Amino acid sequence: MNILVTLNSNYLNPLKVMLKSLFLNNPKENFNIYIMQSSLTDEELQQIEDVVNNEVHKLYVISIKDEYFKDAPVVMHYSKEMYYRLLAFKFMPPEVDKLLYLDPDILIINNIKELYNTDLTGYLFAAAYHDRGSVNKINKIRLKPYDIEAYYNSGVLLFNLNHQRKIINENDIFDFVRENANSLILPDQDILNALYSKSIKQVDEILYNYDPRYYNYYKILSNGKYDMNYIIYNTAIIHFCGKQKPWKKNYSGKFHSLYKHYERIALAQS
Amino acid sequence: MNILVTLNSNYLNPLKVMLKSLFLNNPKENFNIYIMQSSLTDEELQQIEDVVNNEVHKLYVISIKDEYFKDAPVVMHYSKEMYYRLLAFKFMPPEVDKLLYLDPDILIINNIKELYNTDLTGYLFAAAYHDRGSVNKINKIRLKPYDIEAYYNSGVLLFNLNHQRKIINENDIFDFVRENANSLILPDQDILNALYSKSIKQVDEILYNYDPRYYNYYKILSNGKYDMNYIIYNTAIIHFCGKQKPWKKNYSGKFHSLYKHYERIALAQS
Repeated sequence: MNILVTLNSNYLNPLKVMLKSLFLNNPKENFNIYIMQSSLTDEELQQIEDVVNNEVHKLYVISIKDEYFKDAPVVMHYSKEMYYRLLAFKFMPPEVDKLLYLDPDILIINNIKELYNTDLTGYLFAAAYHDRGSVNKINKIRLKPYDIEAYYNSGVLLFNLNHQRKIINENDIFDFVRENANSLILPDQDILNALYSKSIKQVDEILYNYDPRYYNYYKILSNGKYDMNYIIYNTAIIHFCGKQKPWKKNYSGKFHSLYKHYERIALAQS
Repeated sequence: MNILVTLNSNYLNPLKVMLKSLFLNNPKENFNIYIMQSSLTDEELQQIEDVVNNEVHKLYVISIKDEYFKDAPVVMHYSKEMYYRLLAFKFMPPEVDKLLYLDPDILIINNIKELYNTDLTGYLFAAAYHDRGSVNKINKIRLKPYDIEAYYNSGVLLFNLNHQRKIINENDIFDFVRENANSLILPDQDILNALYSKSIKQVDEILYNYDPRYYNYYKILSNGKYDMNYIIYNTAIIHFCGKQKPWKKNYSGKFHSLYKHYERIALAQS
């Protein structure tokens, strides 16, 4: 499986935890890990190598030079790394067709093969949207007049690279950012939804982009089906969305102990 | 290391989870697992064999015949299994000197070597007591006139078997139970404290008998030291005391996700 990550130093340890959890819970798979980055030191890259490189997994470092995005508009305090995942197709080897992008604030706790094998014929991406009615409504209003179908989360994103190579034009993205610089809240996610939401295949958020802040909400709305037992045995991807992160000191949440467990394993080994 | 467990069918799955967590987090140790039991079926014993027996660990089944405890008094709804851990020294091979008893409602999340290596010279047992002032006061009053020093938890108990063989007399235990049948609440723990509390070496409850119901209590009293990070990186034994158990449907607690994680691994393998 081909995995894409993009990151800066702040997320180095979370990235190691995410990768370790991916390998532990997908023991029969061989992974090619592509990392798009511009700011990591050699020592930091070596730390990632130590987690990834062995008999079965390979790390490919794609270092993005500053001049590549020199004409791209910037938004507030966001760096140009916000473009990496949407334009990854330009930097990937031409023989790579399928690619799964994963945010570093994620734990992989079960097999992701079924997600990876999602048929993307005719779609650019597959993603989950976090189905909280009011939030989606606000985002639809905010991103008018782009007529978005749903507001997808860009933290877990499956790419149909061959289709992207034909369809996606980086100038459309740069134009969109120039025109909307003041109203973008999460730039890459806003771009994804405004420009491409009709070409995104929806995947199950409970299985592939589970937001632990909504544990009680999911559980109650499913009449108890999505309880802790269900999540631990079925959910493949827990995505720690939002400002509170499980590696921070004052975090508190249902999956805190589980996150710290994987962190201990990942950081002890590297 | 020599480990003792005693159980009935109700705790078969929790026992498998406990053992699996023990092996995973003590990867360099060889374990001899002694199981004292009287009611397990061959199929149930086989399930435990499947978790334990391999190149490095060995299972020894000690089946206790009914007639052995035919003269022992019974207490309310407790079976004679309540005597197993206190009289284990009578059933263990004579060359075994040190033995660690573990309840099945336990997760082992770090190395237990330091606990196991506790010097027990002059002591019968090592144990932790759960230092909640009011509870200890009530138990001291309840078990008067036995002048107990502290009320130790019997769920994690390190045995000095050679010393026990010299000191402990089963008739003292049976006499105590006959005299106090009506006031015993947790019979084996009450016996341990009333008869032997002065011969118990205290070990750190945060490291070796951590009660997750008191997460906030421990954390506040330690000025934040015993937070989730400390527990995950340092605590070796989490003991899910009390009626609410993490394998039950409506459990809710800080270590729920971690427990279910180990359960999934343990039950998938057996």
